[in-house]
Amino acid sequence: MTEDQPEAMAGEHADEQAEAHPKEHIAPGRLQAFSDGVVAIAATLLILEVKAPASDEPVWAGLRHEWGALAAYAVSFVIIGLAWIHHHNLFHQVRRVDRTLLLLNLGMLATIAFLPLPTATLGNHLRGHDATAAAVFYSLSMAAASGWFTLFWQHLCRHPELLHPAARGQSAAARRQSLLGPVGYLAAALVAPASPLGSLGLSALLVLYFLAGRGAPAGRVRIRSGG
Amino acid sequence: MTEDQPEAMAGEHADEQAEAHPKEHIAPGRLQAFSDGVVAIAATLLILEVKAPASDEPVWAGLRHEWGALAAYAVSFVIIGLAWIHHHNLFHQVRRVDRTLLLLNLGMLATIAFLPLPTATLGNHLRGHDATAAAVFYSLSMAAASGWFTLFWQHLCRHPELLHPAARGQSAAARRQSLLGPVGYLAAALVAPASPLGSLGLSALLVLYFLAGRGAPAGRVRIRSGG
Amino acid sequence: MTEDQPEAMAGEHADEQAEAHPKEHIAPGRLQAFSDGVVAIAATLLILEVKAPASDEPVWAGLRHEWGALAAYAVSFVIIGLAWIHHHNLFHQVRRVDRTLLLLNLGMLATIAFLPLPTATLGNHLRGHDATAAAVFYSLSMAAASGWFTLFWQHLCRHPELLHPAARGQSAAARRQSLLGPVGYLAAALVAPASPLGSLGLSALLVLYFLAGRGAPAGRVRIRSGG
Amino acid sequence: MTEDQPEAMAGEHADEQAEAHPKEHIAPGRLQAFSDGVVAIAATLLILEVKAPASDEPVWAGLRHEWGALAAYAVSFVIIGLAWIHHHNLFHQVRRVDRTLLLLNLGMLATIAFLPLPTATLGNHLRGHDATAAAVFYSLSMAAASGWFTLFWQHLCRHPELLHPAARGQSAAARRQSLLGPVGYLAAALVAPASPLGSLGLSALLVLYFLAGRGAPAGRVRIRSGG
Repeated sequence: MTEDQPEAMAGEHADEQAEAHPKEHIAPGRLQAFSDGVVAIAATLLILEVKAPASDEPVWAGLRHEWGALAAYAVSFVIIGLAWIHHHNLFHQVRRVDRTLLLLNLGMLATIAFLPLPTATLGNHLRGHDATAAAVFYSLSMAAASGWFTLFWQHLCRHPELLHPAARGQSAAARRQSLLGPVGYLAAALVAPASPLGSLGLSALLVLYFLAGRGAPAGRVRIRSGG
Repeated sequence: MTEDQPEAMAGEHADEQAEAHPKEHIAPGRLQAFSDGVVAIAATLLILEVKAPASDEPVWAGLRHEWGALAAYAVSFVIIGLAWIHHHNLFHQVRRVDRTLLLLNLGMLATIAFLPLPTATLGNHLRGHDATAAAVFYSLSMAAASGWFTLFWQHLCRHPELLHPAARGQSAAARRQSLLGPVGYLAAALVAPASPLGSLGLSALLVLYFLAGRGAPAGRVRIRSGG
Repeated sequence: MTEDQPEAMAGEHADEQAEAHPKEHIAPGRLQAFSDGVVAIAATLLILEVKAPASDEPVWAGLRHEWGALAAYAVSFVIIGLAWIHHHNLFHQVRRVDRTLLLLNLGMLATIAFLPLPTATLGNHLRGHDATAAAVFYSLSMAAASGWFTLFWQHLCRHPELLHPAARGQSAAARRQSLLGPVGYLAAALVAPASPLGSLGLSALLVLYFLAGRGAPAGRVRIRSGG
Repeated sequence: MTEDQPEAMAGEHADEQAEAHPKEHIAPGRLQAFSDGVVAIAATLLILEVKAPASDEPVWAGLRHEWGALAAYAVSFVIIGLAWIHHHNLFHQVRRVDRTLLLLNLGMLATIAFLPLPTATLGNHLRGHDATAAAVFYSLSMAAASGWFTLFWQHLCRHPELLHPAARGQSAAARRQSLLGPVGYLAAALVAPASPLGSLGLSALLVLYFLAGRGAPAGRVRIRSGG
């Protein structure tokens, strides 16, 4: 009778819940596990875009030739790591997942899994003739990836019943703060025509600002193992 | 005595269960974790098939040249994301996993892990001379991947004891609805000779229909963290 | 006080356990999660070794040209899937992980993560002039990967205290059965000089035999979510 | 009321905790799951850097040509596997994760995800004219990856409240022992100009020493499933 306890519990309660709450509510646990997988893979695939010095190429010269790709790797890895932190902070505050959150999450994952492409593009072009276009493409991709958090909070502000009660009071502030990412990366796109390297530097500055725990929900909410 | 609690419990109950139920029953928890991994990786590998503009190629022209690959990426990513949702909904309703389900699952994972190949093929050929063959290959691959759900439900209809009691009444409807995927993608294959782009568009429409929560079990059953 | 419950429990019990049992015992839960990750990724990376038809190559001809790679993909994917099933069955019966099991597991993972290389080699050469060598390399790699299970059971037969009590009586039989994999793949290596395709066919037959639940522990023990 | 139990618990306790402990404390569970993902992927991607013999190349000659890449694969895989073991041992002793640990962990993951690049570089060059530079790059990368553990323990020695009480007495010893990795790999870098192969051999010796459970925290602390 106690065998398969987690499953048995899930099953019996599922039966009870069939009446207890609407069908469109989805719990956040498995969604996070799948999202963790996609985000971890996207971050780790980035290094495949940096070419190892070929066997007929001097090692240090080959690595110097890839400095643009290495810089793009470093910035993108940390951006994806920050997205993971923000994602966890957000879903830590979510009590139920509705279909809109599920689809927003799928869209965000598609955008994050896309980031190796602009990262490779910037890595190929940062030293070249078309660096401006590469920096614009990179910054716009980052703006798109971070923009999903604003959509998440917009939806959560309108549907506070999806949040844990203690998180409801902060959702308007979280939505406001979530704008910093897309606005900052759009600013980096605007800087690109003047200086492609400056544009990447601005993204790096934004990342350092987030890392310092300022200006974003990441610094204000805890990640807990229950979530 | 309380150390290693989850393992200790698993172990002692395993001993009791050795008599309590037949050996071929397998619980769905670990199966889902492994399946999540394969599905998340297959989705994230898709972007590797889109070529970043090389350092001697203009950025925007290079990306325009890849628009077919980008469109295929977007459709395939969402199809794999939907397969993940369907997979979870299905196994949320499964109480015990028998050997047939285990093998069906392995077959489905092999098909999903295969999808980067037809996606890359369609991406390479959507603008080219052999676009029809690529669209047929792509659509048939998607039909094969989604067809496993019909086989799953066929088996579950014949073995309702594998389902949670509350899910047994819906299994015939779920089997019927699961036909929409393979039938729809077969229709996309038939459209390919007339218009390869139209064939991809039909797959995209099908995806939007599923995303809207219609015509598939995804819209009817909740994902819960227990499952 | 109830916050962070799993961690708090882990922590307090850890303190008690420091005296309660020897330091070399390691619980199997996290080991399985990490192993699942490596195995799922190795299986999913296999498809990257099959080349999509290039944009200037007819689609069906390109795929026909890759039939060797496709056959190798299919056999390797199912072999890795079976390894995952065997791995879970084995660790489901393990109560404590000692350092030897930890190192055997690391060795097995290194061998499984290696399998995309012989798979790609066989895919490149099955239709070519050096197909025998490729089939020998492939079969020996599979023999090495499956041979770890014999080492696992050899160690568990000598240290039954690592097993759940109910599993101890079967460990000698499991060790004997675990020989079928390495012996079968060695036979496939011996067949290769006569017929490389026959060698791959023999591996496929072996896989079908395992899939049918015969001759291997996979058919006799259940996977449970607790393990 | 019992539905979604883990989430509901997490939510309600989160509310209570808002007062109970400072906001910067983060529990280690999810951090480990994400870290597991990145580490497992980095280890499994390594094999992609070993080139399978092309279809017009003899198989054994092609593999012999890759012996440097194969040796680098073996050493790097085991180094990453050891890093996973050390990472688990460390976080098993951590009770709460503060922002500094979170950022140190992100830095360590970025370094581990980077390792396929120096591994591919060494693989390409170990038989070539620039083997010294490749061995220096490889050794310095390993020193950097292992150096994070010293920074972790340095922080934990200063903030013992982050550790489980029973682990506090050992943190100074763990910090001292964590120096063996970076110091050993720096020694391997110094050996490189005399003998690049000897440098890789020294790293392999260091790995064998860790595998034997000596000189590093790995041999002294248990991994448990609760952590």
